[in-house]
Amino acid sequence: VATTAILGLAAVRKGLIPTTGLVTELPALRGAGLIDWDQLVVGGHEVRPGNLADTAAALGLPAELISACRDDLDAAQLRIRPGVLCHSGPAIEELVAEELADEDCTRSFATPSEAIAAIAGDLQDFRQAEGLDHVVVVLLASTEPPTDTAALPESWPELEATLDEPLDDSQGGGTGCPLRAGSLYAIAALDSKNSFVNFTPSLGSSYAALDDLARRRGACHAGRDGKTGETLLKTVLAPLFASRNLEVMSWVGHNILGNADGRVLASPEHKASKLKSKDGALGALLGYEAQTLVSIEYVASLGERKTAWNHVHFRGFLGAPMTLQLTWDGHDSALAAPLVLDLARLVAASAARGETGALGALACFFKEPLGRPIEGHQTQFDALVRHYA
Amino acid sequence: VATTAILGLAAVRKGLIPTTGLVTELPALRGAGLIDWDQLVVGGHEVRPGNLADTAAALGLPAELISACRDDLDAAQLRIRPGVLCHSGPAIEELVAEELADEDCTRSFATPSEAIAAIAGDLQDFRQAEGLDHVVVVLLASTEPPTDTAALPESWPELEATLDEPLDDSQGGGTGCPLRAGSLYAIAALDSKNSFVNFTPSLGSSYAALDDLARRRGACHAGRDGKTGETLLKTVLAPLFASRNLEVMSWVGHNILGNADGRVLASPEHKASKLKSKDGALGALLGYEAQTLVSIEYVASLGERKTAWNHVHFRGFLGAPMTLQLTWDGHDSALAAPLVLDLARLVAASAARGETGALGALACFFKEPLGRPIEGHQTQFDALVRHYA
Amino acid sequence: VATTAILGLAAVRKGLIPTTGLVTELPALRGAGLIDWDQLVVGGHEVRPGNLADTAAALGLPAELISACRDDLDAAQLRIRPGVLCHSGPAIEELVAEELADEDCTRSFATPSEAIAAIAGDLQDFRQAEGLDHVVVVLLASTEPPTDTAALPESWPELEATLDEPLDDSQGGGTGCPLRAGSLYAIAALDSKNSFVNFTPSLGSSYAALDDLARRRGACHAGRDGKTGETLLKTVLAPLFASRNLEVMSWVGHNILGNADGRVLASPEHKASKLKSKDGALGALLGYEAQTLVSIEYVASLGERKTAWNHVHFRGFLGAPMTLQLTWDGHDSALAAPLVLDLARLVAASAARGETGALGALACFFKEPLGRPIEGHQTQFDALVRHYA
Amino acid sequence: VATTAILGLAAVRKGLIPTTGLVTELPALRGAGLIDWDQLVVGGHEVRPGNLADTAAALGLPAELISACRDDLDAAQLRIRPGVLCHSGPAIEELVAEELADEDCTRSFATPSEAIAAIAGDLQDFRQAEGLDHVVVVLLASTEPPTDTAALPESWPELEATLDEPLDDSQGGGTGCPLRAGSLYAIAALDSKNSFVNFTPSLGSSYAALDDLARRRGACHAGRDGKTGETLLKTVLAPLFASRNLEVMSWVGHNILGNADGRVLASPEHKASKLKSKDGALGALLGYEAQTLVSIEYVASLGERKTAWNHVHFRGFLGAPMTLQLTWDGHDSALAAPLVLDLARLVAASAARGETGALGALACFFKEPLGRPIEGHQTQFDALVRHYA
Repeated sequence: VATTAILGLAAVRKGLIPTTGLVTELPALRGAGLIDWDQLVVGGHEVRPGNLADTAAALGLPAELISACRDDLDAAQLRIRPGVLCHSGPAIEELVAEELADEDCTRSFATPSEAIAAIAGDLQDFRQAEGLDHVVVVLLASTEPPTDTAALPESWPELEATLDEPLDDSQGGGTGCPLRAGSLYAIAALDSKNSFVNFTPSLGSSYAALDDLARRRGACHAGRDGKTGETLLKTVLAPLFASRNLEVMSWVGHNILGNADGRVLASPEHKASKLKSKDGALGALLGYEAQTLVSIEYVASLGERKTAWNHVHFRGFLGAPMTLQLTWDGHDSALAAPLVLDLARLVAASAARGETGALGALACFFKEPLGRPIEGHQTQFDALVRHYA
Repeated sequence: VATTAILGLAAVRKGLIPTTGLVTELPALRGAGLIDWDQLVVGGHEVRPGNLADTAAALGLPAELISACRDDLDAAQLRIRPGVLCHSGPAIEELVAEELADEDCTRSFATPSEAIAAIAGDLQDFRQAEGLDHVVVVLLASTEPPTDTAALPESWPELEATLDEPLDDSQGGGTGCPLRAGSLYAIAALDSKNSFVNFTPSLGSSYAALDDLARRRGACHAGRDGKTGETLLKTVLAPLFASRNLEVMSWVGHNILGNADGRVLASPEHKASKLKSKDGALGALLGYEAQTLVSIEYVASLGERKTAWNHVHFRGFLGAPMTLQLTWDGHDSALAAPLVLDLARLVAASAARGETGALGALACFFKEPLGRPIEGHQTQFDALVRHYA
Repeated sequence: VATTAILGLAAVRKGLIPTTGLVTELPALRGAGLIDWDQLVVGGHEVRPGNLADTAAALGLPAELISACRDDLDAAQLRIRPGVLCHSGPAIEELVAEELADEDCTRSFATPSEAIAAIAGDLQDFRQAEGLDHVVVVLLASTEPPTDTAALPESWPELEATLDEPLDDSQGGGTGCPLRAGSLYAIAALDSKNSFVNFTPSLGSSYAALDDLARRRGACHAGRDGKTGETLLKTVLAPLFASRNLEVMSWVGHNILGNADGRVLASPEHKASKLKSKDGALGALLGYEAQTLVSIEYVASLGERKTAWNHVHFRGFLGAPMTLQLTWDGHDSALAAPLVLDLARLVAASAARGETGALGALACFFKEPLGRPIEGHQTQFDALVRHYA
Repeated sequence: VATTAILGLAAVRKGLIPTTGLVTELPALRGAGLIDWDQLVVGGHEVRPGNLADTAAALGLPAELISACRDDLDAAQLRIRPGVLCHSGPAIEELVAEELADEDCTRSFATPSEAIAAIAGDLQDFRQAEGLDHVVVVLLASTEPPTDTAALPESWPELEATLDEPLDDSQGGGTGCPLRAGSLYAIAALDSKNSFVNFTPSLGSSYAALDDLARRRGACHAGRDGKTGETLLKTVLAPLFASRNLEVMSWVGHNILGNADGRVLASPEHKASKLKSKDGALGALLGYEAQTLVSIEYVASLGERKTAWNHVHFRGFLGAPMTLQLTWDGHDSALAAPLVLDLARLVAASAARGETGALGALACFFKEPLGRPIEGHQTQFDALVRHYA
């Protein structure tokens, strides 16, 4: 997703591609006074080796765009630092271990605080080096296993006190703070008054003590889990059934995908986060609980394609049973990447306006929106336009 | 649809079935002060012989409901008068001719005025006999061929002046006023200060001079073509593509259905009205024209089932091509019948409030809404709730 | 399935329904000298309470057929004996426990031999009471968990020696012979020179020592797992890809079903047998291994409907990727029941001809055919016709 | 298709691609003694301007293959002669007129005989120039409108006598022999003792007098209409329903495609040939007539993709209604091109063996096989293997 976003940003700036897929380029938002695309500078953290141009080619992105944007890709490459692993889960660690050749792109630390300090240092360096007003950190890492936050404090000062405990080596996380890398990035961003966006199903900042941190620092954050396919359709179709008083009896979703994120999700521990995130919205949108089943499987041959089959069994007047089936055949990173760019622009605008805490106005981008209850997609989109236009 | 609506109304009144499928029973509208179901009395016009209980059985409606509601069906049967045929088109006339045994349920007249007067007389008789405040006429007849209104006047007085010209016998309508039976029902209803709802793709009241008549009489009307399946999905999904700035390149819809309405649509002349009605919304919802193809075919084995396959080919960021396919397998009359009951309640409320002309607030019920431009379904539904709740 | 088969047999005999779905009524087999439908007498074992007429009504089978065949259903009811539970697995035992009211329809025994002796006694009684030449026992019970046969002997005499060991109470089967109820029925049938058909994914007679028993007694058997839906399609479509030299890269199948068999399969232990049985054929039919994923889920609202979505990703000339998607929406017992009747007729014919051991000619009926390698469906069907016609 | 076949042949020869999609490379046929790929020399006739390498790029064929095979493409280019137009139908003529720039690639003649003589001359020149034993002419031109053969003689001598009548200019074909260009190629090939294959729905050699010609000259021919998608599936699935005695009530197929062949089919006159060819097989395979509907539409955005939706409504035991839906998303020329190469090899083998007339053993390649009644695909494939292996 990151590679596609970086290439796409470069291509949009150079006028090589239309703005298809970019929400902030819709007429409804064009006058919102958002920053221009060429005011955005991309940096990042990455745990896997390889350079952007090669990754873009491996993703099957258009060769002529890659070569036309080679300069931008190479420049962005130089702004990428080694990523942080921390309780990242077995599948991510395996993936990293596999691809790791001479070069090691990861850093590990003895305590969460040290990891946070290192990330914060990177953000500070980046800001200075590029002369930036503000940094928006967008989490795009592969899905981490669920984090057990039940035993953690809900206020930032109490949480902060636990971050100096040493991390044990076994990633199960028996001792030490259970927060995973995604949340450490969030802390580093928010604590330094930058913004944080969680585009993944990982915990990130979706947790009381981190919202508390954001509010204390006057920072803002958004998330959780970019809404790009099956759930996008669900948040459009469930309100339809509700508006016609049709009773959804069951809603089955089967997802297959073939990229590296898919490989990570093939691991049951990691998949748990994803399934939870995908399954939540339906009851809220319908007003009652229907039987739902969501499954997601790694199918290597699909590459960047992500195919979702949905089977909705519903009942109408006089009890008549009916079905809606749909198959969404999408290109995973082409759907996600422009939203990442949109979020950077919109969150920067929110930060500039002094908005703090969870940005509920961005709910239409996420499967589990922070700062706003789950609503139908159109209602979310209308709220976005009202907020920013 | 009429039979299903009558049986369903009886069953809802007796508490035999849940209110699934009835929009006016949603919590959002429950407090709107609409009339109770038992304040509704059903009458009608019908061109085909047969009684309601037998038709309900032939439609495969639940046998136990039919026998539990036998009294209501028989009572409604007595309130049904022979229907009017006028330029109704070859397929409807054939169907009528085929089923016509001893009994003839149709009336033909020498001029449109005479037909209108006869219908108006029926409405008046019905109102008096049942002691009713108001009559809502809902057009549910099989689709008529398109009516050429280009040469007709746009004001009611001018149109009225043409209604005494004799109708020629050949239904091609070479001479005489080209209005078809559906519009004559509309005139009869509106001229007598009752309401008119056009649930079909036929012209009905979707024409300037009839809106003029409604406004002159202080009457209200709504339509056109109940939105029950493929178009319902389109008006939900097209705004989704628009809200993500995804470019719809083509949208293909193939519909198959097996009931009597399907047989009528198998005739090219009648199909023309339907296809026009189904195809209009997309450009308005997307803001640009994509290639659309809509086809509809009669498949006898399907009976009341109506199956629609849709193939949407769209493009995202960096030009990535993607597809959404869906198959809607619905029960035609179970989808339409409750909306007919809802419309009767809502239009009665509008009439009681003194609303006149086209009721744009009812747009969410129709493929080609009168009195309001085409909008996304959620926007239409929100407008409905705001208007009536 | 059993109820549908019994009702259907009665209805066919009375000439109330056409012979649709019965393979042995095809022109190609009509002259095969099979027994007439009225030479078949149905008996059985059942672990769940309830009578056939009520079960048939609950399955939604046509009310008029049930009442017209009431005499046959009642007569069959009297020939049903309590079933045997033995290592039947947690889900079956739960189901039985739940439905068990006053009446207990199950029998348990201290050793496998005692259970076998009891079943054999029932078969003998049935044969005498009805004056029958031969009994064909068809296993239709819900799927049992996989049986670990690795430690069991491959010859009948050695296996027989283990059948007197006491069964422990805990159904995990820590001690005692691990054979489950399905295999005990098989032994009882084959040891008494009757025939056995395994229409389920359970082990049944698919195991060397039971084939040895069959051959020693001159008895015949067939199985395993009736081929009624997704696998049926696979054994037709995989040969298509093979015949065009198209490379199947992945084949994903997702099955949802709502009847009692579905509930049992929702248990992971039971599901294991089913998934193994569904997934085997592809490599054999293609000649190479493609990635396959088969999942099966219980969706209560579907009742007897069984819906399978298949996504086949394949590659053609010059590497062009393509897909075939299909959705099979079937009525589970309507697909299975006629095959059960066909198998009774065909196996009776094989027994009469003196065929012994596994009946490979019946391969077209099964997902994991005994006595014949896996082949394309058409090849199997041609073999069936050649053998019996 | 031709361009894809030429590029693919070059790539296979050079070992640049696997032999996926080539039937004659299956193990079952590998020992059949067919000619080697490098014994094939490709020539041709073409009515549209443009060179092979550019066309290949426009089709989206892999750029690296095009450049690696540039020499072969350029060599083939030199062996291509201007094509013949004759009653080719409005859509083909329009297409030609549109693309026609400086260069005119078509030839028209005063009489059919002159056209035939010109083609025969080209074949003779090609044979001599390349030192070939035999030429197999494969018709790959866009679909022509149906030809009315009712008034034409059934023997070659009688037909031949009509070929000197002048062709009128209006392509409706009021006077003069109604044979279209496709059949003139067939005559030129067969009359010169070469072979002819009709891979299109056009008439080609599917007509008594041309089979008579073939037999008189000792030449062989095959056709009609390459079976690459929907019909391929039908000839596999219809035998499945037949083998289970399931009653197909209706079979609806909706096809959408976006290449030049699709544009031609968008014309009703041309479409008539295609629809006739696609619809024929079902009754023959089932043994009874079910309602079938086949439609085909041009959807520009699809390019080389051809998507077919099929909806099969069938009935099982006890009348249970069920459905099978499928969506085939294929790459039109990747499916067709290897079959063209296979046919060249196989027909060359038949010619070398002295087979004459229609080659029924090739039925598995065609929608409307010549020389053999319509049968299931597996039966056809088994016959192919038996004949050639």
